Amino acid sequence: MADILWKMRAMLSSDHSSVVPINLFVALLCACIVIGHLLEEQRWMNESITALAVGLCTGVVILLTTGGKSSHLLVFSEDLFFIYLLPPIIFNAGFQVKKKQFFRNFMTIMLFGAVGTLISTATISIGATHFFKKMNISSLRVGDYLAIGAIFSATDSVCTLQVLNQDETPLLYSLVFGEGVVNDATSVVLFHAIQSIDLSHINSSTAAEFLGNFLYLFISSTILGVVTGLLSAYIIKKLYFGRHSTDREVALMILMAYLSYMLAELFYLSAILTVFFCGIVMSHYTWHNVTESSRITTKHAFATWSFVAEIFIFLYVGMDALDIEKWKVVSDSPGTSIMVSSILLGLVLVGRAAFVFPLSFLSNLTKKFQYEKIGIKQQVTIWWAGLMRGAVSMALAYNQFTRSGHTHLHGNAIMITSTITVVLFSTVVRQMNHLCGEQEEK
Amino acid sequence: MADILWKMRAMLSSDHSSVVPINLFVALLCACIVIGHLLEEQRWMNESITALAVGLCTGVVILLTTGGKSSHLLVFSEDLFFIYLLPPIIFNAGFQVKKKQFFRNFMTIMLFGAVGTLISTATISIGATHFFKKMNISSLRVGDYLAIGAIFSATDSVCTLQVLNQDETPLLYSLVFGEGVVNDATSVVLFHAIQSIDLSHINSSTAAEFLGNFLYLFISSTILGVVTGLLSAYIIKKLYFGRHSTDREVALMILMAYLSYMLAELFYLSAILTVFFCGIVMSHYTWHNVTESSRITTKHAFATWSFVAEIFIFLYVGMDALDIEKWKVVSDSPGTSIMVSSILLGLVLVGRAAFVFPLSFLSNLTKKFQYEKIGIKQQVTIWWAGLMRGAVSMALAYNQFTRSGHTHLHGNAIMITSTITVVLFSTVVRQMNHLCGEQEEK
Repeated sequence: MADILWKMRAMLSSDHSSVVPINLFVALLCACIVIGHLLEEQRWMNESITALAVGLCTGVVILLTTGGKSSHLLVFSEDLFFIYLLPPIIFNAGFQVKKKQFFRNFMTIMLFGAVGTLISTATISIGATHFFKKMNISSLRVGDYLAIGAIFSATDSVCTLQVLNQDETPLLYSLVFGEGVVNDATSVVLFHAIQSIDLSHINSSTAAEFLGNFLYLFISSTILGVVTGLLSAYIIKKLYFGRHSTDREVALMILMAYLSYMLAELFYLSAILTVFFCGIVMSHYTWHNVTESSRITTKHAFATWSFVAEIFIFLYVGMDALDIEKWKVVSDSPGTSIMVSSILLGLVLVGRAAFVFPLSFLSNLTKKFQYEKIGIKQQVTIWWAGLMRGAVSMALAYNQFTRSGHTHLHGNAIMITSTITVVLFSTVVRQMNHLCGEQEEK
Repeated sequence: MADILWKMRAMLSSDHSSVVPINLFVALLCACIVIGHLLEEQRWMNESITALAVGLCTGVVILLTTGGKSSHLLVFSEDLFFIYLLPPIIFNAGFQVKKKQFFRNFMTIMLFGAVGTLISTATISIGATHFFKKMNISSLRVGDYLAIGAIFSATDSVCTLQVLNQDETPLLYSLVFGEGVVNDATSVVLFHAIQSIDLSHINSSTAAEFLGNFLYLFISSTILGVVTGLLSAYIIKKLYFGRHSTDREVALMILMAYLSYMLAELFYLSAILTVFFCGIVMSHYTWHNVTESSRITTKHAFATWSFVAEIFIFLYVGMDALDIEKWKVVSDSPGTSIMVSSILLGLVLVGRAAFVFPLSFLSNLTKKFQYEKIGIKQQVTIWWAGLMRGAVSMALAYNQFTRSGHTHLHGNAIMITSTITVVLFSTVVRQMNHLCGEQEEK
């Protein structure tokens, strides 16, 4: 009897309309999984590209059926992304990461993730300021340029992981992935600094303050994640949960992992870093204290959750790429839009090169043995593998440039459409290149 | 870098406030699981009661800290309940139900669920009209009385399942549980009928129309669930998903089950019935076509999901029971409020007795062997076991009596507070009784 009352109310208040998009979205997710599975043999596709393609097609269909009014089904919500979709992805990454490799390369990862992101952000910000000021794009302020630097320095670890193989290239995998996570902590500090420091009065203590702030955030986020993970292990071991029920163990693991993420949000820490370390600790301690069936369940349930969240994001990005409103604003100046996208792509390439090669050189200086060093070929791979910009960049661009829905501001619309272009282009090109490389090997 | 931009925005738009309730809720869910586990030995408590108690305590604390303003953290949303919490509970019930028992007693279940709910709704509606009209409770119309009948005929299958044991009393379990699910379909039709039929012009064809409508809804909902379940089995078997990945199988099962629920919503069918049959078919066919690890994962993941959703509901009901606004409205007439609650409790008892005993008698007439018949002791258990009113009743009462937040209407406030009283009372009393009975047996 539950649903009828709801339905009646829904029909009266026309809330039933929310059922249609959910249906379509779930059906499309199923379609992506089935198509992704069917195309797996071909090796020139994966779920991400499939989801992007399916999203684009759906966008076209909706665009045609609604008479060019909208390609949207759901309004993009940062809450949806940062509260529901991102935590399982990052947690699962920590849960499944090869811990030995990760900790062996800890210093190099820190160097790449922290210093590297700083260099990249600075390069892109300076480059963007230089070029865009010349191009006379209005409505962008200093804060926007710095944001652009941060947005396009966010490596898409989600997508990167699908290109690199943890078993074939463990060193590269842990470097690129670890960098992506640390990346986040750096950016938190960057923005804290940008927002809190008066940009017109930069003095000598700014750098020190910045460093202190960064260390505080990184260390406290890590500690929070580790403590929550250890606490879950302690509770489950001490209370011997498996005695009664597997479900309780699994529920407690999921809830405590999520709690670590939300606690970090509460204390304004880096939630992504926290949940990542929570995942590492849980897979190292908690996981060994639960029953055999809990172990199998958590391993696959977390992976599935993360898998669905990823497809969801790509599906959304694909559908949103066709949002007619944004393209209309920029359609009177297609040249500018293409120029901006090209410049940003160029800056991403340069910004990444600006830290991968020098920092690899530095890292190699500290290694004694030849096999520990990062060869020039591997450096190129690291540079190339981290070029993809994905869902995180999209979410940030939406956040920065759609304040109270102001996409009709010319500068903002251009930045959004350019971000979409860069994301689609980098993802597709990287994927193609990866597959060509693979076929050459065969 | 993800979270900082969001945080900045959040701080500016004071959205950060939503992080606090999520934190508290997740922490309380963890606490409920741990306490429930610790008290399991005592046997006089379970997670539901724990969650209710924890919710009540939290409500008191919030009430005191906010200076008596509010005990709310989250605004109750029917979407949250019907789109996110209920589907996993019902799906899991179908997935884990003992199919042999269920189908052996299919006719009896149908009799109880369909005819029984009708009798119960009629009894309660007539009784409520009779008593409440005398008590001069304003603002209740004919539709409200019929709604009251339906609200208090909704057996709380969630709670009932925790009292009956599937292994110890398989016949009773399948009867009571099956009844609870079919119950839903009946109520859908009831409300369709109430809304669509002009209540002032009831003629002879009304009953026929009603019956046809019911059969249509029941059959089409079942078919939708069965077809979706079979389709998932076919896809997974035919495409041999396990070859590549366990995660894809699990994801596809979850998504297709959810799709069946949402499709039923889309076509105005009984979504609960659909997802229940989808669960049965999936556990019977799909489950046997997936890999061993998928089997373990789905079994425990579904149970965990359902488990967390149940705790969530009880926690919410506990917290909401103290909502000061509703009690304020009724505090000027405590006598009326107590009378209404007592009358409703009495009507629930009578309404249930009015169909359990006669229908058991009818059912026994069709059985040849003595062991197939429902003994008088079992009839009492069925009557007693289905008395609990729970989260579904709450959700429906909110739906019916808080239209656009009008709880300050006297009649509506009384109905909400009475529902809370009946739910708390029936749950706690049933639980106590159950445990006393158990201790006597020892």
